[in-house]
Amino acid sequence: MSFNSFGRVFRFTTWGESHGPALGVVVDGCPPGLTLRAEDIQRALDKRKPGGSKFVTQRKEPDAVKILSGVFEDDRTDGPRTTGTPISLLIENVDQRSKDYSDIRDKYRPGHADFTYDAKYGFRDYRGGGRSSARETAARVAAGAVAELALKHMLGDGVSIRACLVEIGGHKIDRDNFNWNEIENNPFWCPDAKAAALWEEKLDAARKAGSSMGAVIEVVGAGFPAGLGAPIYGKLDADLASAMMSVNAAKGVEIGAGFGAAALSGEENADEIRMQNGKPEFLSNKAGGILGGISSGQDIVVRFAVKPTSSILSPRKTVTAQGEDTDIVTKGRHDPCVGIRGAPVGAAMMALVLADHVMLHRAQCG
Amino acid sequence: MSFNSFGRVFRFTTWGESHGPALGVVVDGCPPGLTLRAEDIQRALDKRKPGGSKFVTQRKEPDAVKILSGVFEDDRTDGPRTTGTPISLLIENVDQRSKDYSDIRDKYRPGHADFTYDAKYGFRDYRGGGRSSARETAARVAAGAVAELALKHMLGDGVSIRACLVEIGGHKIDRDNFNWNEIENNPFWCPDAKAAALWEEKLDAARKAGSSMGAVIEVVGAGFPAGLGAPIYGKLDADLASAMMSVNAAKGVEIGAGFGAAALSGEENADEIRMQNGKPEFLSNKAGGILGGISSGQDIVVRFAVKPTSSILSPRKTVTAQGEDTDIVTKGRHDPCVGIRGAPVGAAMMALVLADHVMLHRAQCG
Amino acid sequence: MSFNSFGRVFRFTTWGESHGPALGVVVDGCPPGLTLRAEDIQRALDKRKPGGSKFVTQRKEPDAVKILSGVFEDDRTDGPRTTGTPISLLIENVDQRSKDYSDIRDKYRPGHADFTYDAKYGFRDYRGGGRSSARETAARVAAGAVAELALKHMLGDGVSIRACLVEIGGHKIDRDNFNWNEIENNPFWCPDAKAAALWEEKLDAARKAGSSMGAVIEVVGAGFPAGLGAPIYGKLDADLASAMMSVNAAKGVEIGAGFGAAALSGEENADEIRMQNGKPEFLSNKAGGILGGISSGQDIVVRFAVKPTSSILSPRKTVTAQGEDTDIVTKGRHDPCVGIRGAPVGAAMMALVLADHVMLHRAQCG
Amino acid sequence: MSFNSFGRVFRFTTWGESHGPALGVVVDGCPPGLTLRAEDIQRALDKRKPGGSKFVTQRKEPDAVKILSGVFEDDRTDGPRTTGTPISLLIENVDQRSKDYSDIRDKYRPGHADFTYDAKYGFRDYRGGGRSSARETAARVAAGAVAELALKHMLGDGVSIRACLVEIGGHKIDRDNFNWNEIENNPFWCPDAKAAALWEEKLDAARKAGSSMGAVIEVVGAGFPAGLGAPIYGKLDADLASAMMSVNAAKGVEIGAGFGAAALSGEENADEIRMQNGKPEFLSNKAGGILGGISSGQDIVVRFAVKPTSSILSPRKTVTAQGEDTDIVTKGRHDPCVGIRGAPVGAAMMALVLADHVMLHRAQCG
Repeated sequence: MSFNSFGRVFRFTTWGESHGPALGVVVDGCPPGLTLRAEDIQRALDKRKPGGSKFVTQRKEPDAVKILSGVFEDDRTDGPRTTGTPISLLIENVDQRSKDYSDIRDKYRPGHADFTYDAKYGFRDYRGGGRSSARETAARVAAGAVAELALKHMLGDGVSIRACLVEIGGHKIDRDNFNWNEIENNPFWCPDAKAAALWEEKLDAARKAGSSMGAVIEVVGAGFPAGLGAPIYGKLDADLASAMMSVNAAKGVEIGAGFGAAALSGEENADEIRMQNGKPEFLSNKAGGILGGISSGQDIVVRFAVKPTSSILSPRKTVTAQGEDTDIVTKGRHDPCVGIRGAPVGAAMMALVLADHVMLHRAQCG
Repeated sequence: MSFNSFGRVFRFTTWGESHGPALGVVVDGCPPGLTLRAEDIQRALDKRKPGGSKFVTQRKEPDAVKILSGVFEDDRTDGPRTTGTPISLLIENVDQRSKDYSDIRDKYRPGHADFTYDAKYGFRDYRGGGRSSARETAARVAAGAVAELALKHMLGDGVSIRACLVEIGGHKIDRDNFNWNEIENNPFWCPDAKAAALWEEKLDAARKAGSSMGAVIEVVGAGFPAGLGAPIYGKLDADLASAMMSVNAAKGVEIGAGFGAAALSGEENADEIRMQNGKPEFLSNKAGGILGGISSGQDIVVRFAVKPTSSILSPRKTVTAQGEDTDIVTKGRHDPCVGIRGAPVGAAMMALVLADHVMLHRAQCG
Repeated sequence: MSFNSFGRVFRFTTWGESHGPALGVVVDGCPPGLTLRAEDIQRALDKRKPGGSKFVTQRKEPDAVKILSGVFEDDRTDGPRTTGTPISLLIENVDQRSKDYSDIRDKYRPGHADFTYDAKYGFRDYRGGGRSSARETAARVAAGAVAELALKHMLGDGVSIRACLVEIGGHKIDRDNFNWNEIENNPFWCPDAKAAALWEEKLDAARKAGSSMGAVIEVVGAGFPAGLGAPIYGKLDADLASAMMSVNAAKGVEIGAGFGAAALSGEENADEIRMQNGKPEFLSNKAGGILGGISSGQDIVVRFAVKPTSSILSPRKTVTAQGEDTDIVTKGRHDPCVGIRGAPVGAAMMALVLADHVMLHRAQCG
Repeated sequence: MSFNSFGRVFRFTTWGESHGPALGVVVDGCPPGLTLRAEDIQRALDKRKPGGSKFVTQRKEPDAVKILSGVFEDDRTDGPRTTGTPISLLIENVDQRSKDYSDIRDKYRPGHADFTYDAKYGFRDYRGGGRSSARETAARVAAGAVAELALKHMLGDGVSIRACLVEIGGHKIDRDNFNWNEIENNPFWCPDAKAAALWEEKLDAARKAGSSMGAVIEVVGAGFPAGLGAPIYGKLDADLASAMMSVNAAKGVEIGAGFGAAALSGEENADEIRMQNGKPEFLSNKAGGILGGISSGQDIVVRFAVKPTSSILSPRKTVTAQGEDTDIVTKGRHDPCVGIRGAPVGAAMMALVLADHVMLHRAQCG
């Protein structure tokens, strides 16, 4: 029941602050025998890395991962393999710019966790947000890369998890333009080339104005079998909701038709079924691939909403820890839309939840 | 990590199927010394009870709760008090109408968990949905009543948790009409008298047509201190997301501004702070009372979307377990809008999550 | 992390007090598809039942178990099968003799949990020991019967778990006389007919004197494969130690050579291996079937020591809750050697631990 | 439910192998505000360090600990304090002597986990035992140092946890000679100067003969309040049993009179109580400070037995992974009595269990 762990059998624990010497994650319960190289994890980390475009923080972090335990390269094998023991991954913090934090130290930044951390702990590491910094998500992405390998190991290469942005600052994509191949062609993981152009314009304006924008991220798991999950409190969707809501700045999560389902009739909402090629196929996917907490074999579709970055250049009303009214301007190297880097994080979280549920299913149902 | 338990320190486990002899819940970790009478729990159950109006299932279930353990009435005390040991609550199933289930037995009802249960377990109790029946929520409401008493015991009578419906079938309330006192005046827990009248008309039409409607439920916790929750994976909002998404038919969860936050600018979204009456007060509540996973002392505001009841009278395409195309009409005594009974369930889940977090906070921060 | 649950994937939660209306257990995570009838569980309960001989409590409890959930009898099956959902088992308390508890209410019985419960909870259910009564072990035995069926379902009928007493009141069995068939021939689960005769004499004398004796119970699991368990904190032996130490009155646990291993040399202790019939066989079993926390395929051998029943007729010095020196005589219908009924409880606990570990192994290693 | 974590609220996760680049531990749930310096942890590690005398392994490991997260040194504080976020501790492996492992690679060392690891994972890191190496206990000792500080923070400086050896190779101490001050005067943590002299002679002979000896370690917690623990499965003694049995080479655990209790009468065993200086005092401590799973306020007394080191110089019968009979001699730099280094490990485990239980008690009982 730890505060910094997630998962049941495939379980990981992250640690580290924005301005400490390093951050990392311990992945426990990974199946033995997977080939795992640092470069496999690095590839995933590079997608989340700061500094990739002008739309993400300009902090320069190579985010180079080291594997400290849990793999072994025998002279009888062709590469390091997981041994079934805990995999410790470490990422050093390199570019913790030495600056004057006196402003943040004494003032609560609106929209940040400054006030609540102080209320809880009576004290906080204010450098760059400390533990509440989005840098923690690097550890999730690293763990997610291990989870993805574990999923392919257990289920075969037919499974995939992809993430994209479907809305920035209220501007949604046109579903008719949806093309997964587009997401690598723009700095927004946007599957709609037209929307990407608009977003570029809007977000650049916000960035120049020292403002920020929110976003909605969609994560899709494909190729997963029916039967993953469990009724009631081990539901696949409940775990995905917890996973996505735990991502920094997330304020909403939905599965399939999601909040839109509330406006549908029973006839519109319930996905019909027909035999196709000798097996049952759903004729639509309002359910987002999950019925009664258990996967149906369709695409697993989750969306989560991320609020606009709270660090902005306009002066905002706040108070000091000493109880005086004041104003604050949050300088720094911030993401104008933190949702962009949320895409690889969301994909990682889905991989982690699914790896856990595949293992739980094997436990109970053999 | 059980499949049918929820919570960390204040932890409960539910059991029971729609058509078994009984259902129940074991509440573990409750503080000792609370006065707990069956009638305290019964009051909460009566709010969720079937048969309350024509808009909920006509199944006649008294849902009479028995306390089987965990309380003790001494001759030195004025009523039964919790002893700190597990509280076992039992509710007998009374009106499991004996009927012919052959239709459901062999056909997968669209929108239901029939197909996925079979895929997972190779087998299912098809009577009334078995374990996936919404009857399980009676157990949650009973546990939630204990949680609410525990919260008042630990924090005083100033805390409250209330739930209402803010949307049915796409028809939203007008926030200007919001009045908590209205929710007892209509069968929808609707805080807007005008909207209630419209919902009555729309839902009655849907009911008569054998159709159904979705809903959005809002749960508000008031009077809770700042400092509840924990960073990263023990976040208050992540636990609330998991709690609400675990409710039958839930497809989305949001906190505060929720999905709407994605369309806001950083300036609009981040709640400013000013000293008022000698302490910091937020000037708005886009955050829904949670920042960085920790409560801010403001109202804790969660909404969840519930899909329309999948049991409808129009014939729907499906397949049999034997792999043949067929059609199905789901007769029975179903809720035309299962979201109505979701309101007391949502309130119960928030009480359960908060009781757990109050105790976790005491554990770590004394 | 509940206080009243045990296990990870195969997980159970017990509830109930000595003098409440009932006690019970919820078994979560059981594989689907096992045939499970109340009589299968009843058979195990009857072994632990009070009133079986003059050497156990004369309380008359039929301990009749009811299955309230988690099984389903289809017209297509030949008996009720587990569905994969939680199995709720209930045992009513019948013979809670109505008596005057004023003596126990105000005085702390030496050797009992009276003082510590009051210290923890500020209050306790003093009737028959409340939650700390050995009646709770009926729930364990019921859950253990389900675990044993699950083990046979997963591993085949070749597995067995048996328990016997190897010492009462300091009188040990002679290992040369060890014969499993003897344990049903005496009221002590004693595998040595000669020792049984001596124990009868000694224990009868103690019983008549209102005194009591301790015991050592040995539990042996046979037919289990190598590979169950996990390094470090998921060790099979650590889980067995926790399981056995959680049994009422247990004060010690050992595996294989146990405390005796401390007196051996490395040469004497380490079990050598030779190929036999084409596979590795250990030439001795000092390890008790567990090396590095993982089963070796040999017999799994655990012993636990149970202190003499604390309820005795000699007056003992104690104090009242009000802080006054006094004496106490604990009348009642007590077991002169509570270890006797500990044998089926120990066997149940081993079954529960092993069912969990078989499932954990399937989770991680497929 | 991870395989490499321990504890509930105060919870730690260790990682690392004997011959990897490093090992470490993540401590989650530590209260905020403790002063924590690397040197506080180092002091504890130095007690467990290899190379301290000829009676422990000659591997040269400085075991220098680094704190990577979870503390913050503000300019307003006089030293680094814990922030309430996870504390990551890292110890580099320095002296992993590069040697030829081909012997161990293919042969199962009797008494070691080689055979069982292969059976479980199909594969193992054979260098120095990999994950099953006693080097993992360095991580426990580091975590235990944090736990001890947390205990003093929560309960005051009056609490203490000490460990000593009470038996080596069958040679027990004389309880009449017991003196805690002696334990620093000999290389065995022996509280009996006379026994220490005998042990020196016996163990030196064993060491020269390439043999090894087992030991019994006693851990005593003093100054702890009554009320820690919980009935049934959250018992303080069950958690201590699990903790001690998880230590490498442990084969038995007992509390208070332990296995000896089985030979006592009820009169001898149950500790009587009398008022002394205005509060209840027990007149003996057969219970080892725990009744019904809850601390009584007396000394908490736990003993665990450690088998003789399995790495010995006499040739032993074994088989190869390829299924051929062979002999093995385990060279290396091994402890002739691994129990010696078990003393600080046992003390650390008790500190970890108690820190967890103090926090759990605060959670439930305020």
